[in-house]
Amino acid sequence: MKIENPNPIQWRFSERAAQLQSSFIREILKITQQPEIISFAGGLPSPATFPVDVMKSAYDKVLSTTGKTALQYGPTDGYMPLRQWIADSLSVNGAKIVPEQVLMVSGSQQALDLLGKVLIDEGSRVLVETPSYLGALQAFSVYRPEFKSVLTDDHGLVPSSLAPVAEGARLLYALPNFQNPTGRTLSVERRLELVETCARLGLPLIEDDPYGALSYKGEPLPKMVAMNPEGVIYMGSFSKVLTPGIRLGYVVAPLPLVRRLELAKQAADLHTAQLTQMVVHEVVKDGFLDQHIPTIRDLYGNQCQVMLEAMAEHFPASATWTKPEGGMFIWVTLPKHINAMELLDEAIKEKVAFVPGAPFYANEPETNTLRLSFVTVPPERIRQGIAILGKLIAARL
Amino acid sequence: MKIENPNPIQWRFSERAAQLQSSFIREILKITQQPEIISFAGGLPSPATFPVDVMKSAYDKVLSTTGKTALQYGPTDGYMPLRQWIADSLSVNGAKIVPEQVLMVSGSQQALDLLGKVLIDEGSRVLVETPSYLGALQAFSVYRPEFKSVLTDDHGLVPSSLAPVAEGARLLYALPNFQNPTGRTLSVERRLELVETCARLGLPLIEDDPYGALSYKGEPLPKMVAMNPEGVIYMGSFSKVLTPGIRLGYVVAPLPLVRRLELAKQAADLHTAQLTQMVVHEVVKDGFLDQHIPTIRDLYGNQCQVMLEAMAEHFPASATWTKPEGGMFIWVTLPKHINAMELLDEAIKEKVAFVPGAPFYANEPETNTLRLSFVTVPPERIRQGIAILGKLIAARL
Repeated sequence: MKIENPNPIQWRFSERAAQLQSSFIREILKITQQPEIISFAGGLPSPATFPVDVMKSAYDKVLSTTGKTALQYGPTDGYMPLRQWIADSLSVNGAKIVPEQVLMVSGSQQALDLLGKVLIDEGSRVLVETPSYLGALQAFSVYRPEFKSVLTDDHGLVPSSLAPVAEGARLLYALPNFQNPTGRTLSVERRLELVETCARLGLPLIEDDPYGALSYKGEPLPKMVAMNPEGVIYMGSFSKVLTPGIRLGYVVAPLPLVRRLELAKQAADLHTAQLTQMVVHEVVKDGFLDQHIPTIRDLYGNQCQVMLEAMAEHFPASATWTKPEGGMFIWVTLPKHINAMELLDEAIKEKVAFVPGAPFYANEPETNTLRLSFVTVPPERIRQGIAILGKLIAARL
Repeated sequence: MKIENPNPIQWRFSERAAQLQSSFIREILKITQQPEIISFAGGLPSPATFPVDVMKSAYDKVLSTTGKTALQYGPTDGYMPLRQWIADSLSVNGAKIVPEQVLMVSGSQQALDLLGKVLIDEGSRVLVETPSYLGALQAFSVYRPEFKSVLTDDHGLVPSSLAPVAEGARLLYALPNFQNPTGRTLSVERRLELVETCARLGLPLIEDDPYGALSYKGEPLPKMVAMNPEGVIYMGSFSKVLTPGIRLGYVVAPLPLVRRLELAKQAADLHTAQLTQMVVHEVVKDGFLDQHIPTIRDLYGNQCQVMLEAMAEHFPASATWTKPEGGMFIWVTLPKHINAMELLDEAIKEKVAFVPGAPFYANEPETNTLRLSFVTVPPERIRQGIAILGKLIAARL
């Protein structure tokens, strides 16, 4: 039963749909997933760190004991015992976070989308680091802001550079710990200065913190949300400390904002899976992460060290790079005339991949930069891949 | 380490955030969840139908055999074997749906949000049934359309009423099977006429079909997407045939549109949980739903019958109501002068709850309507509750 010769639809998309572009990284990943390629392009955590058996036991326990509840619709704001656990874990150093401030989301990418939806009008000014996390640029872009890149150096974002661009800005988005893409960390002094500056300017500060627990020395820096809970929006995630495929994150915000975010979430997907939240609560409630996270830190810390040593050996002196103290990424700056996109074409021919830096810039891209991830590549392959990259860079000098 | 006396933030929300309102139904649900209340207000499926043990075995199997993959990030468009299964299940009666047309989403509410994001600009005309599904009105409202209600009668939407309002409209949203809120079904003749009319007008038609499998007689009506796969966008869900708490649905659309929706989803939440998709595929791939769905149909069909019989006995002759052939809802029209919102206040005092009809209208609400759900209330309580409602209505005549 089909209708005869229908007219083809002339699709008319919304203006915001015209902004939509596929993440360049996800496109590269498609090319570089062949096993023969040594890929430093991934932003994925290492599956070696996924506690599969622990997750399996927790699914079994939750479904056996509270299956009907776990499989029913749930509240938009989330599963209260998990929100309480998150609030408690953030209530340190004198800070007091209440569970009503915590909204559970389907991965912290959703928090970015909801924040964009609730805070950004077309043309609104949005401040980001230079460079910034690509997923945030992508999420905010849908709402058609005017991005302004804020000066960043080896100690992270430079707070004194905010004032000239803050007028009318709706938010500042920052990733203070082991930033994606640079691996840089915002120093403690800068954190205080940044929080004070934002409070003085009346500027909402988003603290995105997916990697904070992955400090190689196990010494996390103080969170900005604890310095001013009424002015800082904190984003957290279980993707890097547990597993990403379950899609579970959270946003902690002052009450007037979190209530708006909750309404936006209700319209966007009703709520995040109850079962997932109950399982994660089952996993974390008795301190599992305290034993588990150090194993991730050790793995990543060792592989980072291997990569840094290989770079020191094989990269020419005119290249510079960051020395991360945690997280998943190293950021390389090549001599100005070397275009990382062209270098990538050559590297792929030699079976090595990385992500060129340009897509991480909201405004003028620095085309001589690139991002390397070391977390899913074994040490021997890291050394091989870096040696090949070193040769390709040297050939372009 | 806190900063001293920060200025409180003066929150400046986006214009679209001003549109955000909590679903009236979710607010009522909070009131009516006390166990002593006989609640016909819920839109939730009955937990008695959740196959907890089957789900538990599937989680166990997927995590035991492919745990690392299931817990890793996955593709935005979804898990291919499940997309293939969905495409195959829709490729009946000569229709040919390919898996590339299927986008997996985090519950079909997310499909509504993505469709709104990609198709609606501020002021765009959007056509909906009279009355329409509240969750769709809520999702689309965020993008600030101009809603136009299309005439609907006992056989569903009236296709001939489209032409005068279709000029420039971005989409028509319809729920043809056992509609939420009315329980009405669009007749086969109307389906063909509607699909032809939309094709002639160049109007994208959204066919939202969460309840289609829940025909009490087990005879599903032909799907409109099969009548014109290039002009109809189909939305499906596992919430009503399996469980809602896992948040898994899908949208099937012509390729130019599905690609845009995929990009919007990437920015919104990267992808829907791999583990959930793999588990559902494990559950459905060998025909489990063919045995399971009839048990849901029987339960709901019996309780619907009980409610209809009780209404015939207790409701005054001046009230009319729909006689659903499937799904979860009965729609009641009272004499014009009775306001269902006021009736609800009285009913709650007598420990009975329902949903007033007004919030389901995009334009002029009919305040003398209400929605009853029978799926989570045992027969004896259905009879009690309907008797009480009948008395309260009679008292207002």
